[in-house]
Amino acid sequence: LLNADSSERTLKLTVAYDGTGLVGWQRQAAGVSVQGLLEAALARIDGAPVAVHGAGRTDAGVHALGQVASAAVRCRHDVETLRRALNAGLPAGVRVRSVEEAPPGFHARFSARFKTYRYLLSIAPVANPFERAYVWHLAEPLDVTSMQAAAGAFVGTHDFAAFRSTGSGVETTVRTVTRSELTVSRMHAPAGGPEQEQWGAMLVYEIAGNGFLRHMVRAITGTLVDVGRGRWPAGRVPALLASGDRAMTGATAPAHGLFLVRVDYH
Amino acid sequence: LLNADSSERTLKLTVAYDGTGLVGWQRQAAGVSVQGLLEAALARIDGAPVAVHGAGRTDAGVHALGQVASAAVRCRHDVETLRRALNAGLPAGVRVRSVEEAPPGFHARFSARFKTYRYLLSIAPVANPFERAYVWHLAEPLDVTSMQAAAGAFVGTHDFAAFRSTGSGVETTVRTVTRSELTVSRMHAPAGGPEQEQWGAMLVYEIAGNGFLRHMVRAITGTLVDVGRGRWPAGRVPALLASGDRAMTGATAPAHGLFLVRVDYH
Repeated sequence: LLNADSSERTLKLTVAYDGTGLVGWQRQAAGVSVQGLLEAALARIDGAPVAVHGAGRTDAGVHALGQVASAAVRCRHDVETLRRALNAGLPAGVRVRSVEEAPPGFHARFSARFKTYRYLLSIAPVANPFERAYVWHLAEPLDVTSMQAAAGAFVGTHDFAAFRSTGSGVETTVRTVTRSELTVSRMHAPAGGPEQEQWGAMLVYEIAGNGFLRHMVRAITGTLVDVGRGRWPAGRVPALLASGDRAMTGATAPAHGLFLVRVDYH
Repeated sequence: LLNADSSERTLKLTVAYDGTGLVGWQRQAAGVSVQGLLEAALARIDGAPVAVHGAGRTDAGVHALGQVASAAVRCRHDVETLRRALNAGLPAGVRVRSVEEAPPGFHARFSARFKTYRYLLSIAPVANPFERAYVWHLAEPLDVTSMQAAAGAFVGTHDFAAFRSTGSGVETTVRTVTRSELTVSRMHAPAGGPEQEQWGAMLVYEIAGNGFLRHMVRAITGTLVDVGRGRWPAGRVPALLASGDRAMTGATAPAHGLFLVRVDYH
């Protein structure tokens, strides 16, 4: 005989959102959060309150292409029906890309192994108006080669205390970064086409690792921009890491250039 | 000796804008227009009222990558200084891409020879949230090959009375279309990257010609979608043109998928 608990199933949701105007992933006392939107949409479908857990607590204004969330529900709809019903109940800026059955005990945050973030920077003389909500525009020359060398120096297992928001209460500030790369891309805005090249190149910073401290990617990006401006040579990164001193490192880059790209499990 | 008129110079401005939330190119009694924004910004620089003329009167919600405007001013700033000063006085969604000296008598609208428009459609099962303000999302299968054949049938000199808003008072509804093409593209949203492909392809319709009637591109796009849905075979386009009957042709496609791409002179 089924009891109440065994009648539950665990879902894995992959979610994209435009963070503009949202208070971030996490439910807050005021403002619209992705977690709050998903919980409300799932509760309407399930007919009871549903708790949704996210892999990464993206801050206010940060975007996601592949945030992952887990939730236990009782309803029996197939995953495709669930995806449609969820999207029908969400604003257009938040889209459930897929719904999958997950093994019992799957938890989007605790089961996550690796996360990938992307940060977009532009050094074009005129900012592309169609990218203004997604790209940090710096209308100044940057030494990209030095920034690329500096980016590579973050790979490995380090104490990232110098690259996080002070006051975030975590047990350890040691994290492993498996990839940290700055590339020059001619990515297209939605309007695309050959005219797009006239806007100039985009700098795309990607970082993957087993975990990220609060504001870590944005603090690293701010430090890469400092290197690009000539404040630090690229070779200084190990010393900045060793210092453990947030005051030594770059300003936190704005939220609107950051995307949670992907979360890997198993 | 210089008189007041000979002290004026004519400027050619190339302007990109995100049409979201704007009432369109043309100044209106209420709401924010591109013309109104440019006239106010130029008047602040010139110290006197300035009239700005646009090549195409884009409707509310329509975007531009390369709208062209002309204006006569008295100030002596070089074009680069003017571009910076204008952008400093405009919202981030409206950007002056270039300022050039134009010959006396240049008029953005009357001197224009060809215009190119682009319309973006998506048939992906889930809409990309980063493109929601720039792409008409139709979550349904469309017969793209038939749409491509139908698009080609608009090339030539035709009476486009069946593809315009009724009530627009123009002398003739005959226009020459030099290019009309639907392509399947894997264009990138700002967040770009390989994950982008997961959203599915974009349909990109481009049309160029010597002039466009009010809502003409959107009416043609609506008709292409009708063909894609199987309402009409592609071979029906000449008969629709010959009918001169707006009631026979497709619904006006939404404004937010349309871009004025380029205006050609000489």
